Amino acid sequence: MALLLYERAGAYDLRVSPYCWRARLALEHKGLVAESIPIFYFETEKVPFRNVGNLPVLSDGGRKIEGTWEIADHLDRAYPERPALMRCPEARALARFMGSWADNVLIPGLMRVVLPDFLERLHVKDRERYRQSREAWVGATVGQMRANRTTYLTDLCCSLAPLRSALAVQPFLGGDAPSYADYVPYTAFVWAWFASEQPVLAEDDPLQGWLARMQDRFEGLPRSLPAAA
Amino acid sequence: MALLLYERAGAYDLRVSPYCWRARLALEHKGLVAESIPIFYFETEKVPFRNVGNLPVLSDGGRKIEGTWEIADHLDRAYPERPALMRCPEARALARFMGSWADNVLIPGLMRVVLPDFLERLHVKDRERYRQSREAWVGATVGQMRANRTTYLTDLCCSLAPLRSALAVQPFLGGDAPSYADYVPYTAFVWAWFASEQPVLAEDDPLQGWLARMQDRFEGLPRSLPAAA
Repeated sequence: MALLLYERAGAYDLRVSPYCWRARLALEHKGLVAESIPIFYFETEKVPFRNVGNLPVLSDGGRKIEGTWEIADHLDRAYPERPALMRCPEARALARFMGSWADNVLIPGLMRVVLPDFLERLHVKDRERYRQSREAWVGATVGQMRANRTTYLTDLCCSLAPLRSALAVQPFLGGDAPSYADYVPYTAFVWAWFASEQPVLAEDDPLQGWLARMQDRFEGLPRSLPAAA
Repeated sequence: MALLLYERAGAYDLRVSPYCWRARLALEHKGLVAESIPIFYFETEKVPFRNVGNLPVLSDGGRKIEGTWEIADHLDRAYPERPALMRCPEARALARFMGSWADNVLIPGLMRVVLPDFLERLHVKDRERYRQSREAWVGATVGQMRANRTTYLTDLCCSLAPLRSALAVQPFLGGDAPSYADYVPYTAFVWAWFASEQPVLAEDDPLQGWLARMQDRFEGLPRSLPAAA
């Protein structure tokens, strides 16, 4: 049956949501191919399911699965013969903590740094509403983000200490091989690469090794998408 | 063979290291009984192994295992027939992220709040060196900690968002039952209870439910230790 992934779209055919990237790489990990249906924010009602709050939404043979976590969980349950995203119930539970950390710390920290550039990569009809909602979310205006970029970069760098310590002793957060808990933070960085051309990490940041290992996993999948113009 | 746990001791026969509490509850989870050997900071050379940097140190039949993570890992490997602390290799890897988060975020956040009270609970000969090292670690003096307690409490409260989100959807961080990833942050709170009589969490904080569930696991083990005087 057909798999359709409804994803947030931006200008230049970009995919502009870290949560949609999470779902996309979860599918890739399972070796599943989903047709990507790009949806601008202003056209959310085009998703052919009622009461859709947020993207991503996966349609699996017509069944709606809404939300990044729910999609990953569905893929492991519906396709148990394919490589597991979460390899035991305890790892599944701990992946939720990783998701909570990414949603509460990593993505807001990246948002403060990339939002001024990122707005240019959204459809012109989406920019104003997106700006307002994200300014409220992270508690700073775009002007403040531009003015305080150095401070926010320092805060972001400090907030990554838990990732660095864990990855100092193992190649992936999931251990010897990447798991969903790797895709969760990794896709936030993928999103940031497309959101802004300015680097968010120093070239000698210890996380660069892990990011390169993750990028190599997908034969350039994130790299092959249209670059930010 | 005898199990001996060398733990940091304070005044009033308290155990004063969150890392030692981690090892203690890991032993408890495995159903293992270790003799507790209390060691003040100033008498670290009493530990009968050379080159011991930090406590806890476990002696398992005369073999030295040094460090909280190494002790938990050793217990799962040496006693596989007993309840696992980490139930699959991926969960083991993700427990390291939890440890990194606790060491980099939770414990420093708690330290800033409890240190002024906590110093009184250390052996009088340990207080000055401990104060100096912890002031340097968290980047604030005891005077600043007293003056900024409200701000530090707010920062701490915000930093707990990843725990709250994960525990909003499951009873324990490890899923349906506690795992090492639960003991890691839980023992930081246990330590804080003994470090200061002032509460670090609001009574209606959603984490209180998880803390109560954890406390109930041990038939009052943390509660039965001498209360802070």
